[in-house]
Amino acid sequence: MPEDAKVEKLKSLAKLMRYYILASTTQAGSGHPTSSLSAVELMSGLLFGGIFRYDLSNPDNPNNDRLIFSKGHASPLFYSLWGAAGKLTEADLMTYRHFGSQLEGHPTVAFPYADAATGSLGQGLSIGLGMALNAKYLDKLPYRTYVLLGDSEMAEGSQWESIQLAAHYKLDNLVGVLDVNRLGQRGETMYGYDLAAYERRISAFGWATFVIDGHSFTEVLEAYRKALNGSDKPSMIIAKTIKGKGVSEVENKNGWHGKALDKEAFERALKELGNIDKSVRGEIVKPEDLKPARSSSGKVGEMQYKMGESIPTRNAYGNALKRIYPEFPEIVSVDGEVSNSTRAQRFKEEFPDRFFEMYIAEQNMVGAALGLACRKKIPFVSTFSAFMSRAYDQIRMSQYSDTNIKFVGSHAGVSIGEDGPSQMGLEDLAFFRTILNGVVLYPSDAVSCERLVEEAAKHYGIAYIRTTRGGTPVIYNPTEVFPIGGSKVLRKSAEDVATVVAAGITLHEALKAYDELKQEGVSIRVVDLYSIKPVDAKTLRESANETKAIITVEDHYAEGGLGEAVRSAFEKCPVPIYSLAVKKKPKSGKPRELLDFEEISQKAIVAKVNSLK
Amino acid sequence: MPEDAKVEKLKSLAKLMRYYILASTTQAGSGHPTSSLSAVELMSGLLFGGIFRYDLSNPDNPNNDRLIFSKGHASPLFYSLWGAAGKLTEADLMTYRHFGSQLEGHPTVAFPYADAATGSLGQGLSIGLGMALNAKYLDKLPYRTYVLLGDSEMAEGSQWESIQLAAHYKLDNLVGVLDVNRLGQRGETMYGYDLAAYERRISAFGWATFVIDGHSFTEVLEAYRKALNGSDKPSMIIAKTIKGKGVSEVENKNGWHGKALDKEAFERALKELGNIDKSVRGEIVKPEDLKPARSSSGKVGEMQYKMGESIPTRNAYGNALKRIYPEFPEIVSVDGEVSNSTRAQRFKEEFPDRFFEMYIAEQNMVGAALGLACRKKIPFVSTFSAFMSRAYDQIRMSQYSDTNIKFVGSHAGVSIGEDGPSQMGLEDLAFFRTILNGVVLYPSDAVSCERLVEEAAKHYGIAYIRTTRGGTPVIYNPTEVFPIGGSKVLRKSAEDVATVVAAGITLHEALKAYDELKQEGVSIRVVDLYSIKPVDAKTLRESANETKAIITVEDHYAEGGLGEAVRSAFEKCPVPIYSLAVKKKPKSGKPRELLDFEEISQKAIVAKVNSLK
Repeated sequence: MPEDAKVEKLKSLAKLMRYYILASTTQAGSGHPTSSLSAVELMSGLLFGGIFRYDLSNPDNPNNDRLIFSKGHASPLFYSLWGAAGKLTEADLMTYRHFGSQLEGHPTVAFPYADAATGSLGQGLSIGLGMALNAKYLDKLPYRTYVLLGDSEMAEGSQWESIQLAAHYKLDNLVGVLDVNRLGQRGETMYGYDLAAYERRISAFGWATFVIDGHSFTEVLEAYRKALNGSDKPSMIIAKTIKGKGVSEVENKNGWHGKALDKEAFERALKELGNIDKSVRGEIVKPEDLKPARSSSGKVGEMQYKMGESIPTRNAYGNALKRIYPEFPEIVSVDGEVSNSTRAQRFKEEFPDRFFEMYIAEQNMVGAALGLACRKKIPFVSTFSAFMSRAYDQIRMSQYSDTNIKFVGSHAGVSIGEDGPSQMGLEDLAFFRTILNGVVLYPSDAVSCERLVEEAAKHYGIAYIRTTRGGTPVIYNPTEVFPIGGSKVLRKSAEDVATVVAAGITLHEALKAYDELKQEGVSIRVVDLYSIKPVDAKTLRESANETKAIITVEDHYAEGGLGEAVRSAFEKCPVPIYSLAVKKKPKSGKPRELLDFEEISQKAIVAKVNSLK
Repeated sequence: MPEDAKVEKLKSLAKLMRYYILASTTQAGSGHPTSSLSAVELMSGLLFGGIFRYDLSNPDNPNNDRLIFSKGHASPLFYSLWGAAGKLTEADLMTYRHFGSQLEGHPTVAFPYADAATGSLGQGLSIGLGMALNAKYLDKLPYRTYVLLGDSEMAEGSQWESIQLAAHYKLDNLVGVLDVNRLGQRGETMYGYDLAAYERRISAFGWATFVIDGHSFTEVLEAYRKALNGSDKPSMIIAKTIKGKGVSEVENKNGWHGKALDKEAFERALKELGNIDKSVRGEIVKPEDLKPARSSSGKVGEMQYKMGESIPTRNAYGNALKRIYPEFPEIVSVDGEVSNSTRAQRFKEEFPDRFFEMYIAEQNMVGAALGLACRKKIPFVSTFSAFMSRAYDQIRMSQYSDTNIKFVGSHAGVSIGEDGPSQMGLEDLAFFRTILNGVVLYPSDAVSCERLVEEAAKHYGIAYIRTTRGGTPVIYNPTEVFPIGGSKVLRKSAEDVATVVAAGITLHEALKAYDELKQEGVSIRVVDLYSIKPVDAKTLRESANETKAIITVEDHYAEGGLGEAVRSAFEKCPVPIYSLAVKKKPKSGKPRELLDFEEISQKAIVAKVNSLK
């Protein structure tokens, strides 16, 4: 099609999309029409201007270009694109924001053309980065990833994490589209219409930049073409746009963020739009039919641990990832510049092509992991358990993408010792437990850690594994199995006065307490609650029925962790539940001193059991 | 003192500090000597070169310049500075990292010369920004704030949030000192010794930059002088340094991060250092004696709500902050570009000088709040409860600074409706509950919200207030009091079959359930658990003793929230506890549809009570 005709058709499509945007938000009585209207030309130009390559009949096609709406509130525009492409009817669009509709207020994976849920700002570029990493380094496919960005969200630090890393990895297959409509939610953005401010910053970070009028199809198409014929740099199209474009009542006006037009204003807007051709449909170019590069799979080797040997579970994590990789060739390891501590390094040394250094930028690391998972990889994300908190919003959001990511947090608890509280993960169990259908695992020795890494890899979904810095003795035989949702009763007799429920480092304290109490003629039951979520309610209930108290012991704050997981396993517990947990401000010191100080050690367990007599 | 003599003395001090760094870490057997050695000249030049102004006898003097070690792992250097200043003896320094010592592995406020705890990287500049904001706009004092930054931590997005905002607020009293020693924890940083890469990026963000040799006192002193005689820009000194400088065995070598020299290596290093003058002491310039600007205080007005009137608690938050300000003139409001939604705007309109727009950059917002709190302000930090998760690491860290910050998260729960899960705070109670000694409040109507804002302002410490988007009827008389740790028994009779414990939006569902059940002749007790932490265990125990079941109802995930707070109030609960909470993947829809869908509505409560018969 000649360029002129193409632009004419695009204009017609843009008009239809504006209609869809206005109609769907007005019927809903809420939504973000003005934030959608500013990017109509940017997005329709991309999809229907011969740039985007996508197999409409198969959203799963690995060759499809990817499109992420980082400014998820522009969902009316997102859905209108697929409407204009013929995949949603006007009636479908009119279900926008209704209970049960695929077309949610911000995109979610309920809608098959959305790869990932967005709506918490500043996350889309990281997701796109993960997809672009996959294309360039893993699948080795020519698909491109486009991310629509709002100007307000450029204030999020996570954006700059992605920007720096995309340049570092030379992701010339990643294109950001920055919709500079000047207005944020409550007023003007930090830079307003100073497009040069964005250009200076983004190009200083090593990106190719293109400043354009975002409502001129000619400029839009030219920018995409240039962006794709470039250097080894990622590209950012920085587009000056008008919020509410096409509806003069609201154009470039403050106070119109997240507000639908009422019926009267909608009618006036329709008049202003003029004739709409509801039959026009955009054409999307089909991608080539290429196969993703595949790592060969193979058989997994066996573990080599001796019973009683002291090994940090973090070491076992590194060993496990390396060992099981042949069976799970979709595994990718990403780490936040601490792979020598988390022991992801052991995997990296063996499979350098499957490891990505993400530097100290945890938010982008998690967003990128989501992007990798969207492209069928199994990312294992590792950093200190304390620093997982840095990416909590990204972790929270990832659940709404029904994703398959494994998080591994090392250096859990006060038992790390001298480094002090800043480095101690003391709330990770609590915040990972809130993830709907999430799995939370806490191994106590090398064998259980390796098995739980395997279980996590097998399980589709979000899983968190908590590892320990210091060595703990191997207590399990390599043939032992550790199903998710299980537990191990390690000491049991008919005379048990109490059940001590522990995991990780405190399990070993419980076993030592058992030995000490045994000498005094007192029996306790000891349960290894390696699966904190889901929790083994059956075993806990049996223990409650057969002993006179439950004592939970955890190297974690008292709230939201192992202790509360145990409590929530009961509607009514027939015996008291006592919680030993970190309840005093932690400090530097030797691990033993700190376990005693916090009263989560052998000594504290023995004292608690004796106090029950 | 002539410059030559000054430099000679600085060299002597630097040698002493290197000795302290090495001796303290070797005796501890851990720590980060090499990361400390690289910045010896940068920091000794600052403190003892006539730049820094500080009243050593009074760390609390409001005129003191501030120094934040964002690279908190360089704590041996930090402590050695105060040793060289004469405030720590060599014996003190030899307690480094011992249990009970003020000198923890990473700086904490146990040490009186540390303003804030650091150690989670990429947070110090935000803290410094808060202090600089205070100096320029609130206290109106000429003190300056210096932040020592590591090169690895520049990968954190939070840094760029601070960098952009410091330029926006023209903080010419803020000086960053970037110690480019090339090596991170597990190898080279993203940019290695490419100092121009840092300069390009930081200057593009609007800072004045000075690239120097970080081991030349002449260059160091000149840079500080230039940084202070400038424009209206913040300044960044970008210094090329050598990790491990002064100890040739480890200089510029990978594998020496976070590792102390053993005794033999320490002896060799001492030989290399040569003669150390242990009597030399650095002089620090005293600041002027100026008084901080003070807002005048006054009497607080009264609330104006009618019983039964429907008002969103978020509105009451804005009203309260405005109303109580005269009694708490240290209040400062910071908001993440959503003040029209959180209603912080109401305060801003009345007291524009006490409000800072922090844009969509929650991490920096919280770090800056910590900086403001360090300078005796009472920051109220507001954004959507969902987006508080973005700054969870900063929130977590702030507790180790024994700080006084109030967090206010709006748009809690599925009851926000159509915007969908990305905007719903469903884990905020869980993650704020993990804060040691933190207070978590959840008002259900305008009156209780206003009172709880007041209580939070009165209380020294971290407090979180959860507010609701939609209107809820006023149920309390303005004279009612709401002490932290309390609750309200709103419905009670001798015939109550169950106690329903709720807060916020679900309290109103419980009250409606009460009415419906009453019609059927069934009585229930209804408790408003407005203080989720600390929790009113006494009232809960009474209710458990007087009714046959407890039903908790919360617009929050089942883990770590109100339900588990209630469970943890009992060692042994005599009756079953049932939890109604968000247990299905939330979606878009009308608030009522979603409350029903999640089974946390009137309907669900009635059904649960009836099922107990």
